[in-house]
Order: sequence, then C-alpha cells, then structure tokens
Amino acid sequence: MSNTNTQIKLAARPTGLPGPECWKIDSSDRPTPEDGEVLLQILQISLDPAMRGWMNEARSYVPPVRINQVMRALTLSRVIESKSSELSVGDLVTGSQGAQEYCVAKPSELTRVDPNLAEPSKYLSVLGMTGMTAYFGLFDVGLPKAEDVVVVSGAAGAVGQIVGQLAKIHGCKTIGIAGGPEKCKYLTDEIGFDHAIDYKSQNVAKEIRRHAKKGLDVYFDNVGGEILEAALFNLNRGARIVICGAISQYNTTDVQGPRNYLSLLVNRARMEGMVVFDYADRYGEAVQKMAGWLKEGKLKSREDIVKGKVTDFPDTLLKLFSGDNFGKLILEIAPL
Amino acid sequence: MSNTNTQIKLAARPTGLPGPECWKIDSSDRPTPEDGEVLLQILQISLDPAMRGWMNEARSYVPPVRINQVMRALTLSRVIESKSSELSVGDLVTGSQGAQEYCVAKPSELTRVDPNLAEPSKYLSVLGMTGMTAYFGLFDVGLPKAEDVVVVSGAAGAVGQIVGQLAKIHGCKTIGIAGGPEKCKYLTDEIGFDHAIDYKSQNVAKEIRRHAKKGLDVYFDNVGGEILEAALFNLNRGARIVICGAISQYNTTDVQGPRNYLSLLVNRARMEGMVVFDYADRYGEAVQKMAGWLKEGKLKSREDIVKGKVTDFPDTLLKLFSGDNFGKLILEIAPL
Repeated sequence: MSNTNTQIKLAARPTGLPGPECWKIDSSDRPTPEDGEVLLQILQISLDPAMRGWMNEARSYVPPVRINQVMRALTLSRVIESKSSELSVGDLVTGSQGAQEYCVAKPSELTRVDPNLAEPSKYLSVLGMTGMTAYFGLFDVGLPKAEDVVVVSGAAGAVGQIVGQLAKIHGCKTIGIAGGPEKCKYLTDEIGFDHAIDYKSQNVAKEIRRHAKKGLDVYFDNVGGEILEAALFNLNRGARIVICGAISQYNTTDVQGPRNYLSLLVNRARMEGMVVFDYADRYGEAVQKMAGWLKEGKLKSREDIVKGKVTDFPDTLLKLFSGDNFGKLILEIAPL
Repeated sequence: MSNTNTQIKLAARPTGLPGPECWKIDSSDRPTPEDGEVLLQILQISLDPAMRGWMNEARSYVPPVRINQVMRALTLSRVIESKSSELSVGDLVTGSQGAQEYCVAKPSELTRVDPNLAEPSKYLSVLGMTGMTAYFGLFDVGLPKAEDVVVVSGAAGAVGQIVGQLAKIHGCKTIGIAGGPEKCKYLTDEIGFDHAIDYKSQNVAKEIRRHAKKGLDVYFDNVGGEILEAALFNLNRGARIVICGAISQYNTTDVQGPRNYLSLLVNRARMEGMVVFDYADRYGEAVQKMAGWLKEGKLKSREDIVKGKVTDFPDTLLKLFSGDNFGKLILEIAPL
C-alpha cells in the first residue's frame, strides 16, 4: 500500500475531444478515515460517455466537475481500513470515488458488492449504473411490448449490449447498430440480436427498413447524429425514442439536430430523455432481476478491462469516442 | 347558382413557397347528386398550414394530394339539393370538400352544423379541426397540470390562440409567442395570456426564462426552427413538448433540426407528435366543452375571413406563411 494517492484532476474544460491539456496529475498523502468512515483502495474505474458532459461548464443533471477537482468516476474498491461497524477490511464496494487510487468514504455513500451474486466487475457494468440505465431506459421510457421492433444504437457498447438482450428477454425483435464486422458478429452470434447493422459499411436507414417493414417501435439512442436521423426515417405509428446519450455529438461544438424530427408528428411518436439517477429507489429490483438472468445465462455482459495505472485514465477515456471500445470500458488499477 | 364548378387543382409539387406554378384553375359541370347524396354549395374554405404538407409527395399521415386532383380542404357548405333523408336543403355542414365551388357528398362524410350552438364559421375554427387540434394536443399530449407554465408558439394563429385559452381555463400560467406588437397585445389584452413574447423584436429564450424561472412545463409548438430551440433551452424537469406543426420549416428544403435536443435528456423531457384525426371518436366531447366555454365567454376565437372567389385560394394560402395571418384563416366564396 502506497502512502501517496495519485489523483487525476480536471485542469481545463475541453472543446472537442478531451486532450492532455484538460488533465493534471496530482499526488497527495493517502487519506486517513475518521470514526464511521472507511479507507478504500480503488481497484477499477468506470469509463462512461457521460463523463464528457460532466467536464462541460453547462448546467446539466449533475453539477459540472470543478476545475482542480478530482475527476468524477464510478469505482469498484476494496476496504483496506475500517472505522465503521458496517464494513470490514476486504469488503468490496462501489460508489463515486473518482479517478484516484485511494479514498475515504462513509458506508452510506457505498454499495456493497456481493461476490456470490456475480463477479465484482459486473457491478460497474450490467449490475451498475450501466445496467440500470439500460433497464429503466428500455422498460420505463421505451415501454416495449412483446413483438415490438427494438432498435439500439451503440449496440456493442456498455449500455447498448444490455438493452438488446433485455428487449429479447421481453419478447421483442431486436436490431443492433454498431461499427465494424467484429462487433456486428458479436451482436448476432454472441448476445442474440436478431439483426446487426454495420454503420461503417451499410446504409442504416435502408437496413432498418429492410428488417422492420412497418418501422421500429422503440429506438434506444446512444449516439445521436445521422444514426438518430436514420431511425426517425423509420418510425412505426406511436414509436418511442429513448434519448440515453449522443456520443457522436459530445465532442463537437456544432451539434447536429435531427433534421427529420417532424417524423415524430407524422407517426405520433415520442422522443424522451432519461437520467438513471431518477430510478435510484428501484435499483434493487433491477439488480435482482438482472443477476438472475446472468446466472441463467440469458444475459451476458462484456467488459473491456484495460489494466494499467490511474495515470492511464485520460488515454483510456478517449477509447470511448474513437469507436474502438467494445463492451463496458473499465480501467483496472489494482488487482481484485 | 352557377352551372359550372370552378376548381383549384394541384398542378405541380412545390419546392419552397407554393407559387402560381403549383395550381391549375379548372372548370367542370356542376355535379348532380345520386340517391342518398346531397349537392353542396361551398361557402367557406379553411386554410391550414397542414395543406403545405399535403402538397408534398412524401409519405405522411394522409396520402399526398395527387397531381390534377382538387386541392384537399376543409369546408363549410350549404345543402342546395338533397336526395338523402338525412339532410335537407338549407342545412349547413362541414367536411373535406376541397377547393371548389360545388361538391356532391354522402351525409356520412359530413358533420352537421348547429347554428344555435355557435356561429357557423366557428365550425371551421374553434369547433372544427383547429379547435380539436388545440384541445387534444394540449390535454392529451401536453398533459398540463394546474399551475404549470404553458408556452405556445404561433400563439395568435388558429390553433395557438385556442391552446393558450384552454391552458388558462385549466389553471396554467400562459406565455404566447407571436410576431409584432398588435398580435402580442391581442394575446394579453383580448384572450388572457399572462405574457406575450414578440419574436420579431425580443430574444425569445431570454424572455421565456424571465417569465418562467424554473423553466416551462408544456411547450406547444406550431412553428419549429429557432423558436423550438429557445423553448428547449428552457425546459423544466419532465417537460412535455407537443409537436403540432413547424410552419417555419414547411417551405424550406434545408430543415433545421433542434440542435439542443439533448435538453430532453438533461431535463427528462419529452417531445411528442400529434395528429388530430386520432381523436375523432372524442370530437363530440371536445365540441360540447368548447361550445360551453364560448357561450360563457371564457373562450374567444378570432377568424381572419377573406372574402373572395375560389380562384383567390392560392394567394390566400400564402398569408399563412408570411406571418400576416391573424387568427383562423378562412376564404369565404359565397355568403352564409
């Protein structure tokens, strides 16, 4: 155990992709827990598209990360010192400890990981915020009925892979959009999507039409831009579009609005945004269900675990925006 | 009564504003009713923004008007010959008889006008499709609660003027957006909007923020473009945007999508399209309520009645797109 705590702090707000100028690597003393607190060693750091939004100054659903503040990040940690009766040394927990090596926290800020329910890294992916986003976005905002056609963009990404499998479990026909043959093969051969569309080599609008003659019923959007427009061109009457993210637009100042949004009018369709935190009081319900499906083998979750040091955080984050990332991106900075 | 029937037919599909090249004036013999039919003299022709969409070739919620077909239009007519036991000579009816002077129809295609309930032209405005659009768009899609802030664009237009008054009757705070001081004065002084914003001389986003500190709860959009973006910048949590139309975008091939649509995500808000025909089985309920409010003086409806001939149809239609139109635009081609 080191006596210093290396931290990644926000040095400047990015325009476009967050390059090295946005970050400052800092070292401080490893903190000491007070009564009622625990000391955590951070093992895994979750990399999420939402981070790009937290780096902006704009008002959003959470306050922006401040300049010189440790970058906000969800983490998987091990308790290495406990001054709380609620947690013991060796316990694994998740929480929002940020991009650093050590952190002091109160048990009320943490969620205990049950290694018997699923392997720990799943708590940063399918059983964590990512899975919760997929579950509540699909079921509570997308409102799919059995037999509905559900189209998912970023389908090989962290959230998208779960959405497609949940829709399939629900009895829907599923179409996933991803970049490149490897990801598309994964969608259909590994995790049961009915069809995959490769946006790098295929005309997305035409392919949706080919697989969904009457149009799609639910479109779960992680990417925005032209792929959102392709979906809007293919709505069935009363379709629901879930706006979960827009990764194609996060690093541009010249955001492209969906030019064919009037398709919502013609098709009496709806486009609705969601933020997972609103469903916090129902996470337990979703975790139980998802863990059950994981055990039954009905639900798979692919993690893209990069092993490195906390100082690899800035470069690892960029993988999210290059299209290279495949599954839930996690930076592992200490062995589990 | 003339023996010829002058008709306005679609000659070519417009790009941009529908100029004279889009129209053909035709004359045919006045038609003769068969058994079970009536002969109608058309008195008033409704001019509606939706007409611009019907002139396009694109798939929409109704089939496009075909080339050489009489232009589709809602009408107020008088029965001048009856071969049906259901309607008598002199009865007033509304229906979709098109831009022409005479028409044969079956009673099942017509709605009888009750002159005791309201003056006949109201059946083309507040008690017709226009009013139905306002009623179901606001209440069924906008889902306003008492005290909600309801913002309406095109607020001095046919639908907008009704939406604002219905929201007020419902106990909401109402903000209308219109062009020019005369219309704005009408909104606040004549029909009870709490605030009016003149988009020609004011910064719409700033003015919405000034009047709705926490953001708007319902935005009823008739115009699209920059005004839709101004509304998106000012959403309260869980806001509902009703997409009723987008008159600023109908005559351009370079449609502007709302660049800040991710405000839907941040604010867990919804944007939903509506088409009034879906509510046909509930028109009766709405007409009864609206007629009651009209009689009580709680609801006013301004009609912009142009007196002329059926051949004035093409020029009159253009008034909708120039911003000159004020209230429900109607072309009257024969005295009531």
